[in-house]
Amino acid sequence: MISFENDYNVGACPEILKRLEETNFDKTTGYGGDPYCEAARAKIRKAVGNPDADVWFLVGGTQTNMTVIAGMLKLHEGVIAANSGHISLDESGAIEYTGHKVIEFPEHDGKLKAVEVEKYLEGFFADPWHEHQVIPGMVYISWPTEFGTLYSKAELKELRDLCDKYSLTLFVDGARLGYGLASDAADVTLPELAELCDVFYIGGTKVGALFGEAVVFTKGNTPVYFKNIIKKHGGLLAKGRLLGIQFDTLFTDNLYMKISRHAMEMAYKMREIFLSKGYEMYIDSPTNQQFFIVTDEQAERIGKKVAFSNWAALDDGRKAIRFVASWATNEEDLRVLEETI
Amino acid sequence: MISFENDYNVGACPEILKRLEETNFDKTTGYGGDPYCEAARAKIRKAVGNPDADVWFLVGGTQTNMTVIAGMLKLHEGVIAANSGHISLDESGAIEYTGHKVIEFPEHDGKLKAVEVEKYLEGFFADPWHEHQVIPGMVYISWPTEFGTLYSKAELKELRDLCDKYSLTLFVDGARLGYGLASDAADVTLPELAELCDVFYIGGTKVGALFGEAVVFTKGNTPVYFKNIIKKHGGLLAKGRLLGIQFDTLFTDNLYMKISRHAMEMAYKMREIFLSKGYEMYIDSPTNQQFFIVTDEQAERIGKKVAFSNWAALDDGRKAIRFVASWATNEEDLRVLEETI
Amino acid sequence: MISFENDYNVGACPEILKRLEETNFDKTTGYGGDPYCEAARAKIRKAVGNPDADVWFLVGGTQTNMTVIAGMLKLHEGVIAANSGHISLDESGAIEYTGHKVIEFPEHDGKLKAVEVEKYLEGFFADPWHEHQVIPGMVYISWPTEFGTLYSKAELKELRDLCDKYSLTLFVDGARLGYGLASDAADVTLPELAELCDVFYIGGTKVGALFGEAVVFTKGNTPVYFKNIIKKHGGLLAKGRLLGIQFDTLFTDNLYMKISRHAMEMAYKMREIFLSKGYEMYIDSPTNQQFFIVTDEQAERIGKKVAFSNWAALDDGRKAIRFVASWATNEEDLRVLEETI
Amino acid sequence: MISFENDYNVGACPEILKRLEETNFDKTTGYGGDPYCEAARAKIRKAVGNPDADVWFLVGGTQTNMTVIAGMLKLHEGVIAANSGHISLDESGAIEYTGHKVIEFPEHDGKLKAVEVEKYLEGFFADPWHEHQVIPGMVYISWPTEFGTLYSKAELKELRDLCDKYSLTLFVDGARLGYGLASDAADVTLPELAELCDVFYIGGTKVGALFGEAVVFTKGNTPVYFKNIIKKHGGLLAKGRLLGIQFDTLFTDNLYMKISRHAMEMAYKMREIFLSKGYEMYIDSPTNQQFFIVTDEQAERIGKKVAFSNWAALDDGRKAIRFVASWATNEEDLRVLEETI
Repeated sequence: MISFENDYNVGACPEILKRLEETNFDKTTGYGGDPYCEAARAKIRKAVGNPDADVWFLVGGTQTNMTVIAGMLKLHEGVIAANSGHISLDESGAIEYTGHKVIEFPEHDGKLKAVEVEKYLEGFFADPWHEHQVIPGMVYISWPTEFGTLYSKAELKELRDLCDKYSLTLFVDGARLGYGLASDAADVTLPELAELCDVFYIGGTKVGALFGEAVVFTKGNTPVYFKNIIKKHGGLLAKGRLLGIQFDTLFTDNLYMKISRHAMEMAYKMREIFLSKGYEMYIDSPTNQQFFIVTDEQAERIGKKVAFSNWAALDDGRKAIRFVASWATNEEDLRVLEETI
Repeated sequence: MISFENDYNVGACPEILKRLEETNFDKTTGYGGDPYCEAARAKIRKAVGNPDADVWFLVGGTQTNMTVIAGMLKLHEGVIAANSGHISLDESGAIEYTGHKVIEFPEHDGKLKAVEVEKYLEGFFADPWHEHQVIPGMVYISWPTEFGTLYSKAELKELRDLCDKYSLTLFVDGARLGYGLASDAADVTLPELAELCDVFYIGGTKVGALFGEAVVFTKGNTPVYFKNIIKKHGGLLAKGRLLGIQFDTLFTDNLYMKISRHAMEMAYKMREIFLSKGYEMYIDSPTNQQFFIVTDEQAERIGKKVAFSNWAALDDGRKAIRFVASWATNEEDLRVLEETI
Repeated sequence: MISFENDYNVGACPEILKRLEETNFDKTTGYGGDPYCEAARAKIRKAVGNPDADVWFLVGGTQTNMTVIAGMLKLHEGVIAANSGHISLDESGAIEYTGHKVIEFPEHDGKLKAVEVEKYLEGFFADPWHEHQVIPGMVYISWPTEFGTLYSKAELKELRDLCDKYSLTLFVDGARLGYGLASDAADVTLPELAELCDVFYIGGTKVGALFGEAVVFTKGNTPVYFKNIIKKHGGLLAKGRLLGIQFDTLFTDNLYMKISRHAMEMAYKMREIFLSKGYEMYIDSPTNQQFFIVTDEQAERIGKKVAFSNWAALDDGRKAIRFVASWATNEEDLRVLEETI
Repeated sequence: MISFENDYNVGACPEILKRLEETNFDKTTGYGGDPYCEAARAKIRKAVGNPDADVWFLVGGTQTNMTVIAGMLKLHEGVIAANSGHISLDESGAIEYTGHKVIEFPEHDGKLKAVEVEKYLEGFFADPWHEHQVIPGMVYISWPTEFGTLYSKAELKELRDLCDKYSLTLFVDGARLGYGLASDAADVTLPELAELCDVFYIGGTKVGALFGEAVVFTKGNTPVYFKNIIKKHGGLLAKGRLLGIQFDTLFTDNLYMKISRHAMEMAYKMREIFLSKGYEMYIDSPTNQQFFIVTDEQAERIGKKVAFSNWAALDDGRKAIRFVASWATNEEDLRVLEETI
């Protein structure tokens, strides 16, 4: 069966499997102290254009979010996020489990509006009653967002300024970072993004790896004893080299961007197919997740041949469904899709 | 360089890599709902001799310990463990991070003494002052222990009886389970172990897999919404199939036990080599971790050709060092070792 | 200076001080095991019309909220509350600190709308994706609300039905319970309220006591080892008798209701004074908190003679201010208020 | 009945009750911003001989311990304590609930031995494996200890040096501080103690107040937003003035030391009575808690007329019992005690 259900429905890039096999019997020390991790860190530092960037590897997105957020927030602080943010909705309360509130703001196409956050912060600190409240300590955004949308450079700059003004950390969840960077709509490069935020991660799980997320601290701001902090969250992989090998491969010969761009080309074609058949978009997403409006009957019919995700029930009885292209999507998938819808 | 540093210093069994490659482009749903996980669960249920056992896959040991312990304890409860236990010493406080105290008891060759725990429990509940204390809710043991030792069936039975008497959960950390089961010293089988405890896990990371631990609930006692609980701990792998594929492979054709037995044969030979050269044992371990006493000079000399772990500084100026055999250790490794020491 | 700033700006009812003095040198056991606590519990059981109600005394509101909520929720659960709820806004993240998300809903005059919560619950459980989310386990409401409003019996019944349907606990924060019960607008009695919810508390701090909140479990549903749980939250008062003496006094000769009714009579007069002078209400509150709209200049002038709380900045440049009557408010206070505004 | 059960079995010093009554209808702002708290802070700063000391008031001991410890530790840190320490044994796991491990050391007469802690710290930081462990961040001691013993100035100095060497915070739990300072055996003054540690608290609950503990930060080291942190732990008393009034009274005319000295005189006489009747001491305590060895029959006979606490069962079948003198103990109590034993 053809599946556009999500971008984690297959294994990994063949290049990665090959490297895992080649290195399988090398003996290395554990927990990320191996040469593969070191090589991967060096390549990532180069790709982000910051020789002092500090790079750490974790296994999955929720784990990364909770570890970075808990590691950077002070006890009295909370994290600002859109109410559609991954940490707000889809992590089973992992952030709150670390003892910190997610301070939710209304999403606008999946994004925070800087002006709304600023208005809140201004009022918050002006009112002495904030001694009884959660002090905002971080702004969390995803880039691309859960809706596939992208903050523009100008929007990122606004958030950066806001964070500077109120001494907040700006954290970018890059679970789908590659698809954002490879989008025609992106007006920010990886080094620019790295410069604009305080910490971000480069998603591997959804972009070619078996698993893995590379956290990058860009301002000399890694929490002390961060390795202990990762372990305290259950996130320190014994065979840390597996992460090193994967990211080393992804950042060799520009592979990460090549496969991301391939995915985006598949996504554009997929979108074209839907539009040409008269389907209506639910969200106008410039990245690898595409959302369309269908009737129940259409959904049922398509679902017999092609897997996708249900997204939302609409008031008019129709529904929104999500089709995701990934590094692994190919022309044959699209051909079947076209036939089916 | 030859390494006996630990049992997680290489990749995975070739059988596992092969299966990962064969299945790489199959499209499956995420988070453990795929057919590979289902198949692996079925095989594990069979291996543990309990058709109703409930099997879950997590990535690493600390993650598994914190998720199972927090998932099973009530708010007012703590977990009893030896002070040499992995959760006591080597998890950066991950258990306490979930809000629960590790109630430490002196280790005896790495093991809890049931009689000591019983004396404590008797006094504890007899004294009304326990209304101000942490209520013991679980006994945690590792099998094999961190010192390579094994509880005998009789010792396990004693702990089981204790847990029944005081309504405690018995949780067995089986990070190195295979090496215990394959030891000549083991007088308990996998089904017997499964029956004696309430929950345990089958270690993959140290026994042939790239990573992965299979948690088995044996008494219909899985916490409700355990998948959400795993996610809340950051432990729900998006490509859950990776765990399914690995455990399916390990539990096909008895692979898990075959590689464990191989490791034990290597361990016995390794031990023989040391003893024949006149080295003294530090701990008499019946499993794959072996501990010897050396002078600083010996340690330095050996360390130039063979990697091992420092274990403890002894009062007489000498030190204990650890050599670990694993599924990947081979005759050539032993030959070099013999030459070197 | 005259103060309507809040309902905790003086000490306690003289009856309470007198009892504290009379009993000062009685020697009792600690932590709530004394005869005064026992007597208070008996009187409260009678007042709530439930001979099996289980009554516990804590010191303050946030402490009570966090202890009850953490004590009753399961690990994977969160608590539903209005976004104006005390636990949502004004407890410095104490609930999240216990590891549980506050699932916020828009307030309507400070209240949850049952129909909105129901729609959410229906969708939530229908979508298998909830395996990645926080499972709702409790509904938290305050009665009176933070805006002084009251849920009617019909509204409480709707929430009760909802909680039954979805197996949620209904918890009522009664920090100002007396003022609600004594309001002309209340259509529910204390026994009815006790019956409608699963657990609630009777506020002492704001209603005549020096401090203290009496938690009442009405359905045989007290968490096991609740005393340990209170201690784990730092809330077990050594001289627990202080709470017993206060609540025993408040529930002798109907004192709690008498002083609450007095406060409401003062509140009605206060409201009349404002309305007769042409001030506009910001919220139409039927309890002891009253909200009026003023210009900056009015606020400044009044503030010179009478203390009040700032509540909200309005879009038209004016602001809402809060005046609170309490058991300690008297005619002289009102006379000065009338002169001043 | 006569009671020597503990030092919190009556109300408060009459001076405190009188002040509560005198100030009862003064209207003040909440949460510690009132003039009584301000006055109390000034007097405490003077008493500790540090004009820059930062003083905060909390309600009880466990609450204070958990708030101070969680407020000062970093995420990856734990707190070192004797295994007989209040935080180790008698707080229902409140410290672990904040996510931090209590690193327990064997007690010696209730005290930590600096040399043992130093040996541990030296080994700990020398071993790179500490990247997997809990980093010690604080040393917690009680003064007097739970066994009534006192660290000498030299012992405190040793711990201070240790803390300086390893960048640890030294926190002194002074729940019974007055009884320590008033002991003939104390060789340290309040200003000296304040200087030797980083933070400590002056116990009110057990020394004359209804309740209350005054936390003193002596090195400009108060955690930022400490009021929010107190609230997050449920410890911010609405009528904060109650704490201010009590500590203002205790630190007026040297009352705190006068009543503490009275208690010590009663304790010395109590001890003399026991020794003169041939009872054996269990612990040689120089403060207000005294421990004696009795047979079951003696315990039962005494228990009919005088309340005390059971402390420990001895191996020879006898038991240790605890008698506590307090500010409220008087000659008549002692007369009855003498007759009874």
